[in-house]
Amino acid sequence: MIPAKTLAVSGERLRATYDLAFTRGDARERAAAIAVEQTIEFPADLIADDDIRRHVIGRVESVEAISATHSRAVISYASETTGGELPQLLNVLFGNCSLLPGVRMVGLELPPGLLAGFRGPRFGVAGLRRLVGAGNRALLASALKPMGLSPDDHAAIADTMVRGGVDIIKDDHGLANQPFAPWEARMRAAAAAVRRANEATGRHTLYMPSLNGRADDVFERARLAKDAGAGGLLVLPGLTGFDGMRRLADDDSLSLPIMGHPSLLGSFVISPDAGIEHGLMFGTIFRLAGADMTVFPSYGGRFSFSREACASIAAACRATLGDLAPIYPTPGGGMTVARAPEILDFYGVDASLLVGGDLHRGDLLENVQRMRAAVDAQPGAAASS
Amino acid sequence: MIPAKTLAVSGERLRATYDLAFTRGDARERAAAIAVEQTIEFPADLIADDDIRRHVIGRVESVEAISATHSRAVISYASETTGGELPQLLNVLFGNCSLLPGVRMVGLELPPGLLAGFRGPRFGVAGLRRLVGAGNRALLASALKPMGLSPDDHAAIADTMVRGGVDIIKDDHGLANQPFAPWEARMRAAAAAVRRANEATGRHTLYMPSLNGRADDVFERARLAKDAGAGGLLVLPGLTGFDGMRRLADDDSLSLPIMGHPSLLGSFVISPDAGIEHGLMFGTIFRLAGADMTVFPSYGGRFSFSREACASIAAACRATLGDLAPIYPTPGGGMTVARAPEILDFYGVDASLLVGGDLHRGDLLENVQRMRAAVDAQPGAAASS
Repeated sequence: MIPAKTLAVSGERLRATYDLAFTRGDARERAAAIAVEQTIEFPADLIADDDIRRHVIGRVESVEAISATHSRAVISYASETTGGELPQLLNVLFGNCSLLPGVRMVGLELPPGLLAGFRGPRFGVAGLRRLVGAGNRALLASALKPMGLSPDDHAAIADTMVRGGVDIIKDDHGLANQPFAPWEARMRAAAAAVRRANEATGRHTLYMPSLNGRADDVFERARLAKDAGAGGLLVLPGLTGFDGMRRLADDDSLSLPIMGHPSLLGSFVISPDAGIEHGLMFGTIFRLAGADMTVFPSYGGRFSFSREACASIAAACRATLGDLAPIYPTPGGGMTVARAPEILDFYGVDASLLVGGDLHRGDLLENVQRMRAAVDAQPGAAASS
Repeated sequence: MIPAKTLAVSGERLRATYDLAFTRGDARERAAAIAVEQTIEFPADLIADDDIRRHVIGRVESVEAISATHSRAVISYASETTGGELPQLLNVLFGNCSLLPGVRMVGLELPPGLLAGFRGPRFGVAGLRRLVGAGNRALLASALKPMGLSPDDHAAIADTMVRGGVDIIKDDHGLANQPFAPWEARMRAAAAAVRRANEATGRHTLYMPSLNGRADDVFERARLAKDAGAGGLLVLPGLTGFDGMRRLADDDSLSLPIMGHPSLLGSFVISPDAGIEHGLMFGTIFRLAGADMTVFPSYGGRFSFSREACASIAAACRATLGDLAPIYPTPGGGMTVARAPEILDFYGVDASLLVGGDLHRGDLLENVQRMRAAVDAQPGAAASS
């Protein structure tokens, strides 16, 4: 016998919206099952008429048909079910749901009390713009690659990129601790090259080494990077964990901007009747987890996110989310110099263009300069400070 | 200009198999793109005829048609691309791949040199059986639930479960740090109850508290749990990170068995033309990441894994994987007392049955005893030591 409980609850509830690949009748049943699954995970008929039933079990707020085959359900959960922690928030929203067929999370509203526990991005759009000394324009980001180069090779590329006007240089997300360029040697060489080039040119380019290492090393590496003068951190939350990213963002002793990368997380967004909607994942959840920039493959590149998916990510980067700062949508994945004006037009000035391999086709310095010129010439962009 | 490189490589390569939702011609192109995407992520035509081309870029070993619409590609990668670290291994295998439509990873062969860097499960099937004092029989696992109960309520349930013969009691995966039962108070109450009941009954039941907390707290909580006498740890690698789980498993000062839970990871397996095959994810990858038990929703429960998917997970738990120990497939998700014989028959004695809410339908002690009797009566099971 489960004892009947009287519980102290705030009354604050979060609301998640799920698209269900079911007609309305079946969807009502499925929504009721989700409300139980994501909370008590227990036969609801064995719960007394008590506060577990009234407050802890998720509440189906609405179910409506949205097409001949699909329905949309809104389910609310008591803030207390999350314990105020990001991993459990994600667990309540979609943990076991991920195992159910035909369920896609497409919306999320968080109440003020819960949101107040999340600091979110430390810098956001305005703060990062200040750090790189940019005016009201898009930022230009690029990556050190390809894997196989030495630390000095990467440093030389970083030097050229600073001189050409890249605002943010990250490690390629595939650079980890390979023998070709061990993590610490590469990080130190690139950080030093960027510092020297900044001094020589008066620029404020940030270097963001990748922290995709062993769980034992992530925080030590972040500190080493900070001490070596790195200007930010590249984090892969699909591997490091969303709360690992949040912890790095929240660390006052680091106080570094975070670029979040979508590695492994494509599986959440790529199938229509499963997972989590693009903007919710790469916008809302990345912001909650402290990213200042969210990398994703833009439409028209070598991946296949649609224009709608990309627009949704950009919108979620900028939507009101308590007091959390807006962040930079950072489209990449096959961006070219030739496409820069179109891409800039699509994402606007509060974005960061991530251009990789294409910059190496011909002369790197010239290509960077052309790309930077495109960024500076964007309608609406104001001159750099 | 990317400099031509001469690199020292071992010649050891890992081999990943991908099912591609493309006919053979398109699949060859897609496979070649994956081989580049997962390694140098750089225009291949800009790489010299050097060791980056010869060794660092992935190598398409074969592409064959497997149906009118699908093909299967084997791509090998130099061990060095992983740096010997789990996060980068996963990144090479499926990081950006996850963002490509029509790609599902279905197979993996790791070379001995790379495998030697992974300790895998500390206990495995034989070790865990010794810890709980079981003979050659399946293990019986259950969960403390529902959310909303107090630490003392959970402790009382744990006490009954020990007396009835549950081998492993875990926190429900939704129990985190809710005000109803804050993490430390709940963990201490349950650990103490299990210890006392073990002393009273002579059993060796293990209590495994959930570590689904903030990244800041995970390792501290593991230590608190160890000190309080917890017999293992429940880890949700979809939230804590696969390497976070691996770190917990590898920690000699903890030396505790790990139960891995699939929360959030359903999105990787649930869609046919995307993600990672069930056995590869919940068997192979969980073993690499140190799980001694892998929880998944069994066929026929309230989720929808097929019999084939469940058989694949069980097979991957037991397949040769270097020197790594086999682990317990731990089917759950709506198991009932009535279905125990069939489930036991399907998974065999080297499995752990995870039975949850159904044990509370009627008398908990009697239901646990009946379930334990079913486990003991399984053909092939030998008496407990």
